[in-house]
Amino acid sequence: MVETKERAEVSLPRLQRRFKELSDIGLDPEVGGLYRMAFTQEDMEARSWLEKEMEDAGLVVARDGAGNVSGVLEGREPDLPRILIGSHLDTVPCAGTLDGSLGVLSALECLHAMNEAGFKPKHSLEVISFSDEEGRFGGMFGSQAVTGKLTPETLHNAKDLNGVKLADVLERRGMDPWKALEAVRDPKSLECYLELHIEQGPVLDVAREQVGLVEDITGLFKWSVTLRGEANHAGTTPMDMRQDAFFGMAEFAYQIDRVLEENGSERSRATVGKAELLPGSANTVPGEANFSLDVRDTDPEILRQLSDQFRRALSAIARRRNLMFEFTVESEIEPVACSRPMLDVLEEKAKDLGLAYRRMPSGAAHDAQMMATITPTVMLFVPSRGGKSHSPQEWTSWDDIFAGTNLLMETLLELSETGVTDSQEA
Amino acid sequence: MVETKERAEVSLPRLQRRFKELSDIGLDPEVGGLYRMAFTQEDMEARSWLEKEMEDAGLVVARDGAGNVSGVLEGREPDLPRILIGSHLDTVPCAGTLDGSLGVLSALECLHAMNEAGFKPKHSLEVISFSDEEGRFGGMFGSQAVTGKLTPETLHNAKDLNGVKLADVLERRGMDPWKALEAVRDPKSLECYLELHIEQGPVLDVAREQVGLVEDITGLFKWSVTLRGEANHAGTTPMDMRQDAFFGMAEFAYQIDRVLEENGSERSRATVGKAELLPGSANTVPGEANFSLDVRDTDPEILRQLSDQFRRALSAIARRRNLMFEFTVESEIEPVACSRPMLDVLEEKAKDLGLAYRRMPSGAAHDAQMMATITPTVMLFVPSRGGKSHSPQEWTSWDDIFAGTNLLMETLLELSETGVTDSQEA
Repeated sequence: MVETKERAEVSLPRLQRRFKELSDIGLDPEVGGLYRMAFTQEDMEARSWLEKEMEDAGLVVARDGAGNVSGVLEGREPDLPRILIGSHLDTVPCAGTLDGSLGVLSALECLHAMNEAGFKPKHSLEVISFSDEEGRFGGMFGSQAVTGKLTPETLHNAKDLNGVKLADVLERRGMDPWKALEAVRDPKSLECYLELHIEQGPVLDVAREQVGLVEDITGLFKWSVTLRGEANHAGTTPMDMRQDAFFGMAEFAYQIDRVLEENGSERSRATVGKAELLPGSANTVPGEANFSLDVRDTDPEILRQLSDQFRRALSAIARRRNLMFEFTVESEIEPVACSRPMLDVLEEKAKDLGLAYRRMPSGAAHDAQMMATITPTVMLFVPSRGGKSHSPQEWTSWDDIFAGTNLLMETLLELSETGVTDSQEA
Repeated sequence: MVETKERAEVSLPRLQRRFKELSDIGLDPEVGGLYRMAFTQEDMEARSWLEKEMEDAGLVVARDGAGNVSGVLEGREPDLPRILIGSHLDTVPCAGTLDGSLGVLSALECLHAMNEAGFKPKHSLEVISFSDEEGRFGGMFGSQAVTGKLTPETLHNAKDLNGVKLADVLERRGMDPWKALEAVRDPKSLECYLELHIEQGPVLDVAREQVGLVEDITGLFKWSVTLRGEANHAGTTPMDMRQDAFFGMAEFAYQIDRVLEENGSERSRATVGKAELLPGSANTVPGEANFSLDVRDTDPEILRQLSDQFRRALSAIARRRNLMFEFTVESEIEPVACSRPMLDVLEEKAKDLGLAYRRMPSGAAHDAQMMATITPTVMLFVPSRGGKSHSPQEWTSWDDIFAGTNLLMETLLELSETGVTDSQEA
């Protein structure tokens, strides 16, 4: 069914060479971390490097109004909806080399190998590297643009942590900010979306499995919580006359486990990652505690339950301890389910390749989360050594990268012929 | 027994006039708070103002090598040990008007009224305003100098929060830093020390009592505690694979009550006033929690017990939660007992004046804590409205200020004749 001179085969040396070159762009040799935040000089350099590599791979290169870089392997029937495979090249500050890059470079390798072998797929295949996934200006900028979620308001107001405006940065890079709104794709032009990514968690590494087939991508809500009591002298205020905001925060920590046990699933996560006491002096009873709450699950109903119960727990603590309680919703993202037919193809191919795999959720947000809102989507994970990510310690063995890329290749070889059909279901 | 033309009487209008004038020195009219931190221009101005007021009161004015300002009402027997009455004029940033100033101005008023009435005490009386009680350069600088606790090392190394060196500041103010070491007094030259201060806590205000007779001044230990786990992605790290330092800190908060109940007294206080999570991002499991622990009691044995038990509690939490535990002792101050004979005089006079009073501990540190190490010492408190201090909201009613100053006056009239004797004990 596939007209090919020879079998398309992943070249690990080529993939390694590309990793090495890309990892030099934005590297701070002092700390060993990458600084390739969206729309920086380094990020722009990475785009140009990628376009050259795509050309070398024989792909048709394009860059859309949002700065997303694409390389297309044209199919035998170019009017059929395209299969997109992507991720991003931008990084958090002091990043490792794999987050995002792995998805782009593995997809490029698959298409390069196909092209080299003379394989011409039925559906066109497109590698896409999305702009600002990591969130210098809010996150998933490129995939929001492609899926029609970008608004003129965001374009106008988005700023980075230093107050630099997105629109100004785009102009400085020779881009017309308003063109980002034109990056939107017609869902009918898309067959499906695939993304290979590092797990960014410890599950596969601990279980010594090579790939994870992502069933659902977590949704989340993020709150800024304030408990306000009264600041007082630490020496002169008897324990029973205090309105100590720290104790309120600490009691909430205790309630987190209870709320998760009573209302959560095994996929639920709750994290307090940021906390501050005010006025913040060792000899003053803290009159105010400010902290973040990040809660995730893959089931929208469970997320709603957790939100409700965490709010009740905080209210009750505040009442009991004579504190004021306020919270601001900083963000809310709905969970999305991956395509079951695509998962079945992935699972079949993983079996064929003899890979140790598991079906699992993604606890992190990805461009796939945006893409899933307009087209059937699936993600595959490779293990993160020690669960590390967003750090120079981020790593995955070449064996696992090779295994993941092969699984992507096999899946693409099938989907590019059949498209996504219900008949693929088991 | 007292040779006096008329009875020495406290003048409330004069005391109020002095408060008003002193409260203008260092006032930020925008926020309503005082900024008269030690050895600032404003603090130096307050010293000069005080010296002029002392001269107007007919006292013999002196300034020692540590910048302590004294005004002496010479006694009939000038070779007898002196009675010192003091406090400080320096403030924390954004302070109220009473902390420290009340002790200096009420003592000045007593001596002024005695002088005016032609009262010549047997023992000489000396009002002393100590330098840097509040701790721009560590705290209780003046009383440490007087009690011989100042070391050349402190003089050489002490810096404020902005890194400004004490020695440089003293020189800029025309002082020779090394002369501070010469401010030490021979304990034999001192009969006793008294200090009138605002309570800085809510106890008298809640009980609607006018004065507190301080039996003991609290000792304390202050730790910087670190619990170290592992930073991880908040979405991808299952709850049971975390080493979350925040939960360790929160569990410790829960143990504070238990440790106090099991090992503390009703005078025990424990406060976590400062806390920080690292890396400090909402979507990262915190790998490190740093927090302060301030523990106080008036009994040195109880303080040792509390220190031991808090250390055990933290160790156990760390073991249980797979965290590393470290702590640094930031400071340790031994509690001191006030003079029982002097307390008895105070109590007798409070009864004579018909004041509602209680014996109580001081939870805050004061210059009296230094003075108590070389001479019999007592403190008296007046109520702090709402327990507020170190804030522009700090206040005490004029009635209570008048009552406290009268109690100081009556006590001085007696002690200046009899000195401190065991026979004063009930």
